[in-house]
Amino acid sequence: MTTQAVPSTELVADALAEVRRQAPLVQCITNDVAMDIAANAVLAVGASPAMVSDPGEAAEFARIASALTVNIGTPHPRVVEGMTAAAAAAREAGRPWVLDPVAVGATALRNEICAALAAHRPDVVRANASEVLALAKLLGIATGAGRGRGVDAGDAVNEAVEAARGLARRLGSVVAVTGAVDLVTDGEREVRVEGGHPLMARVTATGCALTAVTGAFAATSGAFAGTVAACAVFAAAGTRAGAVAQGPGSLRVALLDELYSLDPTRIAGGVRVEEVAR
Amino acid sequence: MTTQAVPSTELVADALAEVRRQAPLVQCITNDVAMDIAANAVLAVGASPAMVSDPGEAAEFARIASALTVNIGTPHPRVVEGMTAAAAAAREAGRPWVLDPVAVGATALRNEICAALAAHRPDVVRANASEVLALAKLLGIATGAGRGRGVDAGDAVNEAVEAARGLARRLGSVVAVTGAVDLVTDGEREVRVEGGHPLMARVTATGCALTAVTGAFAATSGAFAGTVAACAVFAAAGTRAGAVAQGPGSLRVALLDELYSLDPTRIAGGVRVEEVAR
Amino acid sequence: MTTQAVPSTELVADALAEVRRQAPLVQCITNDVAMDIAANAVLAVGASPAMVSDPGEAAEFARIASALTVNIGTPHPRVVEGMTAAAAAAREAGRPWVLDPVAVGATALRNEICAALAAHRPDVVRANASEVLALAKLLGIATGAGRGRGVDAGDAVNEAVEAARGLARRLGSVVAVTGAVDLVTDGEREVRVEGGHPLMARVTATGCALTAVTGAFAATSGAFAGTVAACAVFAAAGTRAGAVAQGPGSLRVALLDELYSLDPTRIAGGVRVEEVAR
Repeated sequence: MTTQAVPSTELVADALAEVRRQAPLVQCITNDVAMDIAANAVLAVGASPAMVSDPGEAAEFARIASALTVNIGTPHPRVVEGMTAAAAAAREAGRPWVLDPVAVGATALRNEICAALAAHRPDVVRANASEVLALAKLLGIATGAGRGRGVDAGDAVNEAVEAARGLARRLGSVVAVTGAVDLVTDGEREVRVEGGHPLMARVTATGCALTAVTGAFAATSGAFAGTVAACAVFAAAGTRAGAVAQGPGSLRVALLDELYSLDPTRIAGGVRVEEVAR
Repeated sequence: MTTQAVPSTELVADALAEVRRQAPLVQCITNDVAMDIAANAVLAVGASPAMVSDPGEAAEFARIASALTVNIGTPHPRVVEGMTAAAAAAREAGRPWVLDPVAVGATALRNEICAALAAHRPDVVRANASEVLALAKLLGIATGAGRGRGVDAGDAVNEAVEAARGLARRLGSVVAVTGAVDLVTDGEREVRVEGGHPLMARVTATGCALTAVTGAFAATSGAFAGTVAACAVFAAAGTRAGAVAQGPGSLRVALLDELYSLDPTRIAGGVRVEEVAR
Repeated sequence: MTTQAVPSTELVADALAEVRRQAPLVQCITNDVAMDIAANAVLAVGASPAMVSDPGEAAEFARIASALTVNIGTPHPRVVEGMTAAAAAAREAGRPWVLDPVAVGATALRNEICAALAAHRPDVVRANASEVLALAKLLGIATGAGRGRGVDAGDAVNEAVEAARGLARRLGSVVAVTGAVDLVTDGEREVRVEGGHPLMARVTATGCALTAVTGAFAATSGAFAGTVAACAVFAAAGTRAGAVAQGPGSLRVALLDELYSLDPTRIAGGVRVEEVAR
């Protein structure tokens, strides 16, 4: 998918084929809860995860990895040092890096960490609507919130559209606001990704796993097209997994199976990808 | 379930409905092994887990969470600092907090940590029989052990009854001794919960997950009734999961599915709840 | 299996029966990603895992555990301190300990840690072919690499045979090089274990879980026979799990179920164990 191509499920399938072909090495600095599912999701799409976070090696490793993903869910001080060092090294080496600002706005510590990481200009920010709003507010970006735009049922991302655009422009990042519907924007273009299943919200760290998978796709298809493809692949797998799951335990198992088993037909049947502004 | 109500599976079902309605935010400070299953169990019953443990934010977060659970399984020094600060803050803010003294008695470090945490008066202590005995001994409470009361097959909790009562009175806590049969006491009343499946002992951190779930129920139904309900919900899900599992891998998956799918009929069919002293 | 016995699936089944009978306590110091699957695999074969890694208790615990396993996957400095202290204590107390040098060679930090741990003479080293080559090189042992021996499809262990023998002799260890085919050597004898399934490589930390399981078998059957049996049990469970899995999610679930359910017939049907040199 070139920067100008119109997103489609065919292009998503091409991007997945490319991840499987290149098997990019993705350095994942993630939280204590997400380690297992994030590593397994990266493996399931055909890439290689490496959970390298200690400041004694994080920057060194960021220079050999194909992409870096940073999730601040459990911000132990040494790991935060590792995040910052790795983000700086990734930027310097020209590797894409993805920021997942978990629960930014909830505590002073998280705000401080996110402000410091934002200064290293992530290529992608992947977050839910309230985190995008909180991050924008933290950076002094207009969010349009409070103007009573209303939130569609299951579509809280609408509330965060303006914040996402502002963040994207300020940081020069692609911003993915994920939820029942995902929105991906680079500040100009906007793509909506519809799919997935409500049970995914009952499995811990599915968003964190998507962040890690986004690193793999950004490495092989670039930030914008890669983020769209990662969201679409996750949504398609979630749609299919939700159709067979008995609850959150079996949903998680099926999600990993489906990520591994996706093909163009399954992608086309499991997700809708639509460019809504350009 | 009021403090005086006689426990029953109907009241357990009501307590579960209340957790689902309120979706309490449960701050879980747990061990490295239990993170995933604890967060997923809390999500499966309809509550929201937050794994916030660093001393830089643990106390701040304890004031906004509905309950706190503290499990000392992997006692890294900074996390232990976070536990103590969060426990103090929870008590001060009037939020219930639950202590899980993993392997107390096994090392000097664990004894030291448990003595310090006990001083913050947990609302609930959830542990197995040998941990209850060790914690009572550590605090100089008579355990009745060594008096040859005998242990029924699959009912080691009998051995710990006196220690549990003593602990409950000393700390002003509800104590849940869990095993093949669970005993919940506040020092006066005693409820036995029978259900579950032997395979649960072959899945790591199921007890730690119950501790986290107990936080959710204590937030919405109070310490005593909430602890009874948490044990009963877990036992009912375990009974049902054990009936379909092929081994510990599928048991774990089914346990989460069942926690999510429980209804009054399934609870009534999966667990026996009986008040044995008052 | 005595030191001199010819390995066979019957002896592997005997070793598994012995693990189930003795239920050895295995202290596992492992990485953040592997915690869950390693503990569950140890439980599934009938042993008891204890994830005790902090330097405040790691050495104390190593004296009461039946075996110790050390995996350097996420080398946080305090945990590395715990590894070293525990390894020294295990050696002094005569308990077997197993080293898993994850990604040695990839960063300076990992090389430094592995050199320090090797000085404590692990009873077993469990690693993949490239890690065995890197560890041998780090210790100045001839590897025979670069001599163009060629690598059979799916049999990268051939490339590491000479390094494994050299490592085994230098450290007085049993070395297991695991992959599509596993090779176990003590520097003189060599056993090949064939089984498993390619999907295992798409599940994170299966090698780390095997390391933890090897601790259990080394405790009850000795280093050489125990390592052969651990590899064989894992391979047999993997073969059977691979036959029913839909992808990596269900593979992982089935692997744990199969580890729990193995019997002599299933072992004989799922793995080939052959002594190739003596």
